[in-house]
Amino acid sequence: MAFDSVRTPAGKADQVLGGSVNYFSLAASLFTRVRIVAVVGEDFPLAHLEELGKRDIDTHGIQVVPGKTFHWAGEYDGAMNEAKTLSTSLNVLEHFDPKLPPSYIDSPVVFLANIDPVLQEHVLNQVKNPELIACDTMNFWITGKLEELKKTLKRVDLLCINEKEAYLLSDQKSLESAAKKIQAMGPSTVVIKRGEYGSAVFSGNEVFLAPAYLVDEVVDPTGAGDSFAGALVGYLAANGGSRAMMKTAPQDWDQLLRRAVVYGTVMASFTIEDFSIGRLKHLKKEELTLRKERLIKMISVRQ
Amino acid sequence: MAFDSVRTPAGKADQVLGGSVNYFSLAASLFTRVRIVAVVGEDFPLAHLEELGKRDIDTHGIQVVPGKTFHWAGEYDGAMNEAKTLSTSLNVLEHFDPKLPPSYIDSPVVFLANIDPVLQEHVLNQVKNPELIACDTMNFWITGKLEELKKTLKRVDLLCINEKEAYLLSDQKSLESAAKKIQAMGPSTVVIKRGEYGSAVFSGNEVFLAPAYLVDEVVDPTGAGDSFAGALVGYLAANGGSRAMMKTAPQDWDQLLRRAVVYGTVMASFTIEDFSIGRLKHLKKEELTLRKERLIKMISVRQ
Repeated sequence: MAFDSVRTPAGKADQVLGGSVNYFSLAASLFTRVRIVAVVGEDFPLAHLEELGKRDIDTHGIQVVPGKTFHWAGEYDGAMNEAKTLSTSLNVLEHFDPKLPPSYIDSPVVFLANIDPVLQEHVLNQVKNPELIACDTMNFWITGKLEELKKTLKRVDLLCINEKEAYLLSDQKSLESAAKKIQAMGPSTVVIKRGEYGSAVFSGNEVFLAPAYLVDEVVDPTGAGDSFAGALVGYLAANGGSRAMMKTAPQDWDQLLRRAVVYGTVMASFTIEDFSIGRLKHLKKEELTLRKERLIKMISVRQ
Repeated sequence: MAFDSVRTPAGKADQVLGGSVNYFSLAASLFTRVRIVAVVGEDFPLAHLEELGKRDIDTHGIQVVPGKTFHWAGEYDGAMNEAKTLSTSLNVLEHFDPKLPPSYIDSPVVFLANIDPVLQEHVLNQVKNPELIACDTMNFWITGKLEELKKTLKRVDLLCINEKEAYLLSDQKSLESAAKKIQAMGPSTVVIKRGEYGSAVFSGNEVFLAPAYLVDEVVDPTGAGDSFAGALVGYLAANGGSRAMMKTAPQDWDQLLRRAVVYGTVMASFTIEDFSIGRLKHLKKEELTLRKERLIKMISVRQ
């Protein structure tokens, strides 16, 4: 959970709601019930937790502690593929000790958002036999806590990572060899995000290339990757996606994954049309479905 | 027709065969008979024209004139999406006056490679009622001869252009609005090339997004766009693609175009695996077909 202050060529937004968990849970909640684990400071608007509750998002795992909520300030230049961080104030995140409420420990699907891999593992240790574990990370942890990250990755089934980070983590120069190397670290499914160009998805020996949906104006790319992951993992959870399926029915998994990626892609296309969670907050399933159908038409080839 | 001197992270090649027409015709010749119009100097190896002849490429329209063949020297950096031109020696190209042999004037399909738009129109004026006119151009002409280019574009059915050039030509900021604006200039089909990320194709109101095929090592991106266009236009020519089809059967055209773009995409993926026309020269149709099948599998979503 975060407050973001963002400047883009389209304008700026100060102290708006942000954070991976916000984008992820709003996106995933269109498919399945979501349980949040996070920390906020006393400055956080509790009304927002009520808003999340209305989307059937369980907020019992959100700790409210003395101090200020995490704050990120950044800006995007013309291409908008990469944020330039202006400042990061960890605040209450600095001493975050994620504790799962007892009602969470039977969660069948776990998504470990981008945070210290030691904390990611700490969360994993509290869940009882999850059926599917997905994970995100970033260059900061790849550079600074590589061994800890590799330890976490051993237990992960699906890794979401951007292109640059995939090259950094794998020390490879082509996308396919990067994916193969990362698969060998643990996650048999690797989803590589390529910003405005879409994603390349590797599951076992299968490859799926998904172009991004074309949007008229990118207002703010913040949260694109998190909402992509939210729709992706939410759709998989709602349709029985699991490690067992990966192993015993890889073809079914691959097809399910492709549809999930398409949902993730169009979800991200909505997110970037407004600052913060502005577009996502009011997004209807029918709007998502319409754009999903259009994207599938845009990538179809009749033989 | 050109000699190229190229440096890439993978190595370098000096004074090797290059030029749009080389890449285009070798690619297109896997689908249909090609007739070349070009100019070379006395330093050009006539043995190469014989090689082209063996691929059933008609070289009667190649003028051999006193002087040196056009020479381009360039290099690519890490990302390899854009060449940095080190030097351009026009040589015999400076006074090129493209003249079509009488046997060429009934050509049903015309591809105007990237050259002065005045010469492009001059070529067009010599062809009798072509059924399909495709065209390439570059930033140099968009900036320097915009009015002449627009005059040529009015007669063009299909424009191949890269992403940056599309934004430059249209003065728009999103891909879809750029395509719409270019369509209004004449070409009802606009193929926007996005380097390693593939292409976005606009025909009438249809959109086709084609990711690039993943290659292990990009040795030299030179000629990727030209061989893409060669397979694209060659496939269209071999399968009855025409302006009339665009108008009377737009759905058929759109489907034909999508398959043509897939062929173009995989053709480019072979081109960049070696310097010059090294890979293209010996490429077999079966290799192309195999990779085409693999790419189609990589972009398919079962609903």
